[in-house]
Amino acid sequence: MDIAVKVGILGATGAVGQRFVQLLEGHPWFKIAELTASDRSAGRTYEEAAKWQLDRDVPPAISRLVIKPTVPDINCRIVFSSLPASEAVDVEARFAEAGYVVVSNSSAFRMDPSVPLLIPEVNPDHLELVRGQSTFASGGMIVTNPNCSTVGLVSALKPLHDAFGLQAVQVTTMQALSGAGYPGVPSLDAVANVIPFISGEEEKLEAEPLKLLGSIDDGEVKQAAFRVSAQCNRVPVIDGHLLCVSTKFGRRAAPGEVAEALRSYVVPESVRRLPSAPAEFIHVFDDDDSPQPRRHVDLGEGMTVSVGRIRSCPINDVRFVVLVHNTVRGAAGGAILNAELLSASGVLRSAS
Amino acid sequence: MDIAVKVGILGATGAVGQRFVQLLEGHPWFKIAELTASDRSAGRTYEEAAKWQLDRDVPPAISRLVIKPTVPDINCRIVFSSLPASEAVDVEARFAEAGYVVVSNSSAFRMDPSVPLLIPEVNPDHLELVRGQSTFASGGMIVTNPNCSTVGLVSALKPLHDAFGLQAVQVTTMQALSGAGYPGVPSLDAVANVIPFISGEEEKLEAEPLKLLGSIDDGEVKQAAFRVSAQCNRVPVIDGHLLCVSTKFGRRAAPGEVAEALRSYVVPESVRRLPSAPAEFIHVFDDDDSPQPRRHVDLGEGMTVSVGRIRSCPINDVRFVVLVHNTVRGAAGGAILNAELLSASGVLRSAS
Amino acid sequence: MDIAVKVGILGATGAVGQRFVQLLEGHPWFKIAELTASDRSAGRTYEEAAKWQLDRDVPPAISRLVIKPTVPDINCRIVFSSLPASEAVDVEARFAEAGYVVVSNSSAFRMDPSVPLLIPEVNPDHLELVRGQSTFASGGMIVTNPNCSTVGLVSALKPLHDAFGLQAVQVTTMQALSGAGYPGVPSLDAVANVIPFISGEEEKLEAEPLKLLGSIDDGEVKQAAFRVSAQCNRVPVIDGHLLCVSTKFGRRAAPGEVAEALRSYVVPESVRRLPSAPAEFIHVFDDDDSPQPRRHVDLGEGMTVSVGRIRSCPINDVRFVVLVHNTVRGAAGGAILNAELLSASGVLRSAS
Amino acid sequence: MDIAVKVGILGATGAVGQRFVQLLEGHPWFKIAELTASDRSAGRTYEEAAKWQLDRDVPPAISRLVIKPTVPDINCRIVFSSLPASEAVDVEARFAEAGYVVVSNSSAFRMDPSVPLLIPEVNPDHLELVRGQSTFASGGMIVTNPNCSTVGLVSALKPLHDAFGLQAVQVTTMQALSGAGYPGVPSLDAVANVIPFISGEEEKLEAEPLKLLGSIDDGEVKQAAFRVSAQCNRVPVIDGHLLCVSTKFGRRAAPGEVAEALRSYVVPESVRRLPSAPAEFIHVFDDDDSPQPRRHVDLGEGMTVSVGRIRSCPINDVRFVVLVHNTVRGAAGGAILNAELLSASGVLRSAS
Repeated sequence: MDIAVKVGILGATGAVGQRFVQLLEGHPWFKIAELTASDRSAGRTYEEAAKWQLDRDVPPAISRLVIKPTVPDINCRIVFSSLPASEAVDVEARFAEAGYVVVSNSSAFRMDPSVPLLIPEVNPDHLELVRGQSTFASGGMIVTNPNCSTVGLVSALKPLHDAFGLQAVQVTTMQALSGAGYPGVPSLDAVANVIPFISGEEEKLEAEPLKLLGSIDDGEVKQAAFRVSAQCNRVPVIDGHLLCVSTKFGRRAAPGEVAEALRSYVVPESVRRLPSAPAEFIHVFDDDDSPQPRRHVDLGEGMTVSVGRIRSCPINDVRFVVLVHNTVRGAAGGAILNAELLSASGVLRSAS
Repeated sequence: MDIAVKVGILGATGAVGQRFVQLLEGHPWFKIAELTASDRSAGRTYEEAAKWQLDRDVPPAISRLVIKPTVPDINCRIVFSSLPASEAVDVEARFAEAGYVVVSNSSAFRMDPSVPLLIPEVNPDHLELVRGQSTFASGGMIVTNPNCSTVGLVSALKPLHDAFGLQAVQVTTMQALSGAGYPGVPSLDAVANVIPFISGEEEKLEAEPLKLLGSIDDGEVKQAAFRVSAQCNRVPVIDGHLLCVSTKFGRRAAPGEVAEALRSYVVPESVRRLPSAPAEFIHVFDDDDSPQPRRHVDLGEGMTVSVGRIRSCPINDVRFVVLVHNTVRGAAGGAILNAELLSASGVLRSAS
Repeated sequence: MDIAVKVGILGATGAVGQRFVQLLEGHPWFKIAELTASDRSAGRTYEEAAKWQLDRDVPPAISRLVIKPTVPDINCRIVFSSLPASEAVDVEARFAEAGYVVVSNSSAFRMDPSVPLLIPEVNPDHLELVRGQSTFASGGMIVTNPNCSTVGLVSALKPLHDAFGLQAVQVTTMQALSGAGYPGVPSLDAVANVIPFISGEEEKLEAEPLKLLGSIDDGEVKQAAFRVSAQCNRVPVIDGHLLCVSTKFGRRAAPGEVAEALRSYVVPESVRRLPSAPAEFIHVFDDDDSPQPRRHVDLGEGMTVSVGRIRSCPINDVRFVVLVHNTVRGAAGGAILNAELLSASGVLRSAS
Repeated sequence: MDIAVKVGILGATGAVGQRFVQLLEGHPWFKIAELTASDRSAGRTYEEAAKWQLDRDVPPAISRLVIKPTVPDINCRIVFSSLPASEAVDVEARFAEAGYVVVSNSSAFRMDPSVPLLIPEVNPDHLELVRGQSTFASGGMIVTNPNCSTVGLVSALKPLHDAFGLQAVQVTTMQALSGAGYPGVPSLDAVANVIPFISGEEEKLEAEPLKLLGSIDDGEVKQAAFRVSAQCNRVPVIDGHLLCVSTKFGRRAAPGEVAEALRSYVVPESVRRLPSAPAEFIHVFDDDDSPQPRRHVDLGEGMTVSVGRIRSCPINDVRFVVLVHNTVRGAAGGAILNAELLSASGVLRSAS
């Protein structure tokens, strides 16, 4: 389509960069025009520079694109960033200053008060925060999606927060290997083992939900008031983070009410119609032993969050299990959905 | 040694039965005299009937033993039982009635008020409960060890219970495949997957700690008063259950105090000298990413419980990770230690 | 479509039965009308009786079908059989006698002289053998597809057999867990291990290629004359059998000629147009480390066979690696393609 | 012991370096006096510099040793080298020139005509080659052990070569992750996958056996005359390379004769008495599905080579499966055995 918006991918050769390439193939609104990577890769074709990890082939048109350095001198309106946080803090700021719309999967700006941290089905109203960014007048802005585990947790918490209020959330994660990128976790650490530590992960999972479920008040996010305790583990699974959650509500609620709240949660029509929004935002399992990462991670093309084993907790109110596709909903897919939300809203037009 | 006590193994061909065989080889006090199994196996040699799973060979003398049916007509004083609970409830009772000392790994009688549920380093005084068993006068009795995850949890909780009191314990487990026996979990369920459910496991993990940490009062256990919430998962690990724990104490305690309480816990001298007691009951790791099942499960020949990542909890007081060898400390090794405790105490003599 | 042919699945609840259900959903020519299983499952709905293993949901219309016993009294023209060989030998014969077209994945009749053993891209002319079956006049017949490893091997050998002749084939397989069905291989045997034995597999892999690459002579198969040596191993992979092959040809051929023969092999137009035929029958990889089961098994929706690492052999002529999706191309997908070949040919019409 | 020979480990922090440390603990003849590593690690204690991978703790005395740079200025007589080949080619030569005895696990000098490539049970007479090294007069020399897969293959071939002669050997390997060192293979490549390629491995496996089974003639190795074809794969196993072998002999031999030749192979008494020599050099399994890496890799403390599934081959004479512990027998353990052979022989004395 001629009217497709040109997009670029910053850090296109990495694990999340590859997911961006895969998920943007045939996208109805966006067309990959630019790929950037480190200086080492710049000047080579994507095919030469990227060690492709995913199970479908690289789209042929993309294979032949020549990679550029990651500097704000590329021909596109929107850039998807999968840069590591340490680089993103400078690079993304520079792109925003140069007038690009930066849709970032990095953690660098997630907790910045003027940067929206978005799950379109959860807090689309937070998008308005971009208007407070200094670069907004000249068309530049940054929006972010949450940490890959946070997305799963908050997607399941949102309907419960609305219905019952939240006081405390205990979560233990079992996270997939793809969350560490490539080469990521050495196989001698991963095979037949669990590593009870992921650097920086617990901090993100304890902070981000409070912003995501906060309310917009006078152009600022007023953070939600509950507490989160997170314990994060790496398990030998390819894709799909599994979370065991126990929640204490503001008012008592039985497991049946929780299931009902999850099932009846209404995603705003404007979000439901976005191209990457799944038919079902939250899938609730009734059987004993679901969701399971390998079997259920691809529900809704990886954009559906699954919840199961909803039952009461001897200490808090209700316990359940959450599954989220960490590199689709939790990374590239979530970012693309954010870009769609941005495109469908008036924000882009009012900024340019 | 001529004076070794003759022991039998009920259900000797199964996964835990094989661990009993392995761990009793060369035992200074006990000598395997009898092996029993289902009628299908009875009459065959152990070598013919058992599909040996462990990484050392079957001791040759045991290979040639002929398996008997599991009826109380075998020539030994002590029987180790690794029968499934559904069978154990009848069979173990019948052995006790016939005057055998039944040292059971089964869950059948664990919560029976007159049956001691024992971790020798934790509650050796509970052994006295056997005197209340109706079969005691004629020499028959039943003692039990806890569920394989419970052992790890309670070993770590005991010093904290003593030092700070316990109010609430949240635990999420990641349990090894060997916990399900053989053939156990189908590989298509296990490989690159997590199953967020283990039948009956959460109930045991929520009930048994209260008995184990209870006090003996007038010949009965007065259960401890805290609450446990357990969420149990099966992960693709061979041996070693890993537990993420968050504890709320009766009085505030910092992570450093918790580490100190664990390190300075004193195991009674009489227990420390038992042949199967490890040099170190609890090993505390200081580094970020330990304990790990594959790397640390064999500490203390599988009898040491490991604790790591001791840190404060945003909701409760302190969080930590526990690792326990599920088929050694959590099953056969724990039962053998119970039998040693029993033998070293005056109980056996007073009963016979 | 009203004119869709009604089909039944014998043994519909097993691993291959489930693949039949999955792959036949939305099939343009066939419509599942009947499901059968063991007496234990008969009378229950498919949803109740089948422990669904695959990563897409059961098609809803199929979920509610009531399972029937596996007897030739069901309402359909074609039956797909995924029965174990021991049952198939009787049951399939009875269905053929009753006038059903039996498209079997079982090994029971594969080497029967009057039963075609088919890979449509390889030996579609063998279909004619059915005319020699005693039940043919009354419309009943049996056609079979090869063992799941054989399909991969013979697909790669066919172009080489045509071009250079074959004298000897050494093959070592590394086979996926799904090849053993469900529950299949216990996880304690599979995780972080290789089992160097699969019962009956080597015999099939040494015999079936000779029939498949044989020529039809006067209504009979004249077996091909080369020798096969197969060594079969089970590895911890979910789907996809990988084969290391070394071939000795009738006339010398260099690796480049082998690659060219594989790439230029022409599948008959009539076969290429069948609904389940992949766009690419054989995919040849040029890079060093492909094909790999987890990354490439789904090429061509699991119907493409991959070949890589074509290089010369110090002993024979040329070596290469083959990958085949064992439950799609190697089982249900291969059988469905056979049924399509049968439907598109004149055989069905001339039989009924 | 005071008279223990001081040894150093070059590249002590890597995977094989760690095995050297582990296996040399408590060695009756050798005492670790020096550890070297890259300049980055030099100056730190071993505990600080090495990310310890093995399941027993670092011996405390070693933990506190300060690492030195890898230059020939350390205080010991023998150095064990686990350097990568690219470094070893210079560094080992320099150590030999400086008068050290270099016992190397590297491939750098394996095929050098004046360097013995040794398996003590197989070709101890090759040790004599060191006398031809230019540095020998001044006490410096290099001896090497073979590639980790080669050791397994040649250990099994030696008795057959002696008994029946060898014409051709087809071998397909399934190699453990530890063979690639640490961090080695990324987990995303390894989990639930097979990689049909290991750089440089097939070449070594095709060349080294001919030197190992060659005869010493006038101070030089006359290579054996058979051909080897090797196909190498990486599988998700921790330790233990498994090899599927098919052999063509000089004279026909039945499987029973092969088993007998393996079982009756006599290791020279002088080798059998070396401290690291296993009680059983080759273990022959009779059952269907052995050896298996996870179950049998530790036979003989990792120094025994296992053989199973001995059966006839439709193309060559006899087929079988071999298992070897790749980091013990195939690396550090094999090198230590070489050093023991060297120490027990007169070579060291005549050189110094």
